[in-house]
Amino acid sequence: MDILRPEFQHPLRVYIEDTDAGGIVYYVNYLKFMERARTEYLRSLNFEHYLLSGDDYQFVVHSAEIQYLRPARMDDALIATAQIMEIHRASLIFKQKITRDMDILCTATIKIACISSSTLRPRALPEKLRNLL
Amino acid sequence: MDILRPEFQHPLRVYIEDTDAGGIVYYVNYLKFMERARTEYLRSLNFEHYLLSGDDYQFVVHSAEIQYLRPARMDDALIATAQIMEIHRASLIFKQKITRDMDILCTATIKIACISSSTLRPRALPEKLRNLL
Amino acid sequence: MDILRPEFQHPLRVYIEDTDAGGIVYYVNYLKFMERARTEYLRSLNFEHYLLSGDDYQFVVHSAEIQYLRPARMDDALIATAQIMEIHRASLIFKQKITRDMDILCTATIKIACISSSTLRPRALPEKLRNLL
Amino acid sequence: MDILRPEFQHPLRVYIEDTDAGGIVYYVNYLKFMERARTEYLRSLNFEHYLLSGDDYQFVVHSAEIQYLRPARMDDALIATAQIMEIHRASLIFKQKITRDMDILCTATIKIACISSSTLRPRALPEKLRNLL
Repeated sequence: MDILRPEFQHPLRVYIEDTDAGGIVYYVNYLKFMERARTEYLRSLNFEHYLLSGDDYQFVVHSAEIQYLRPARMDDALIATAQIMEIHRASLIFKQKITRDMDILCTATIKIACISSSTLRPRALPEKLRNLL
Repeated sequence: MDILRPEFQHPLRVYIEDTDAGGIVYYVNYLKFMERARTEYLRSLNFEHYLLSGDDYQFVVHSAEIQYLRPARMDDALIATAQIMEIHRASLIFKQKITRDMDILCTATIKIACISSSTLRPRALPEKLRNLL
Repeated sequence: MDILRPEFQHPLRVYIEDTDAGGIVYYVNYLKFMERARTEYLRSLNFEHYLLSGDDYQFVVHSAEIQYLRPARMDDALIATAQIMEIHRASLIFKQKITRDMDILCTATIKIACISSSTLRPRALPEKLRNLL
Repeated sequence: MDILRPEFQHPLRVYIEDTDAGGIVYYVNYLKFMERARTEYLRSLNFEHYLLSGDDYQFVVHSAEIQYLRPARMDDALIATAQIMEIHRASLIFKQKITRDMDILCTATIKIACISSSTLRPRALPEKLRNLL
């Protein structure tokens, strides 16, 4: 279980919609960028998006820790990364970063929990996902 | 049918989340403010929110025309108004404004269509709403 | 002046951040998608982003007309288009669409005005932009 | 310094703009609700909004830890709280919650840093704010 999994990289562009009156990217929006990276990572594994499957599970964000290091600005070309650090019975722990060229702008640890869509209680990760990872 | 219906007023505050790097409210967000006013208007009539009712209809925005006159800024206290101008068999036409003190910042005409949740086809407004209006 | 200018196409993906509790893309967000297309169109012409230049002008949305035809959903691959229909002394009129495969989901006419950053009054389009277009 | 400061409470309503296709409030938006509470807390102290003052400082989010416990839904009436737990030379630590009736939906610890607007380097909190707190 202690293999190091690859870091997935998702490029994105900053638009005016992402900024705030401080002239920089509104810090809340980095979480959106990170979710795009997780979504594209799962898509790259041919795992259809976790929310809307017909099966009896969905993924929810359980907790997040974020550190803001440097601001991003309008028109910046950024990379959002996603790397799975731990796979538990009913959750995944991602390490994520937002970078611009060689600079790290933001880092985060995001814990994703798998719950039953019908009971909303924790349940084991779907076998298919476990195999893909 | 050509009575003039009252103008509902919903006060709101501009937060940093609403602004963009131009230092003003991101123009797209006025549409959110206007939807808050429509929602609160219906709530004030004791019409529970139109989206999530169990009945076989929902309301969708069919079209919108918006004019931007003056910018709003961080911390501004604004009023979003909603006034029904026309009631058709399967749609409503709202006139809406965003104002700050005596200034009109934005005006819009929004056409809301009633559709069946199951078929997604236009259907008559629910009788209950028609009576409330 | 009555040449037909090319339609610029910007591909984009729908993420969970773009959706609402109706299970579809929140209609306000189509305006964000259309702005991305305008921004990328200007970038493709090597016109650096219109907001943050050091020169004494900026572009603002003057008015918009939007028609919603069909909903977009989570994970959809969309195209946002931007096509300049009219060039006036101090404004541009864009025709824009959001499409998915052969379906048109949303159309809009957006009038962009050029204003002086210092006086906030209308001013002529920058010569450089006029030449690029 | 180890006095317990009061918990400020900011009531808010969930609108369709806040939700996602999971039918619940998009988890990223709780951070917006928490920032509204911090902003209103400072406003209640007569401290004008921290971002746009003419003085040479601004406040930025340095880091955040968030735990998601229960989902909020369309039309929910929520309370966002803000309570200062620690005051350092150049930063503040807030404890924040989102609640609905007696339920806690989300908790967070947010560290706000004070930086110089000109140099973007950490600087001491403004004396005026220190006195208000």
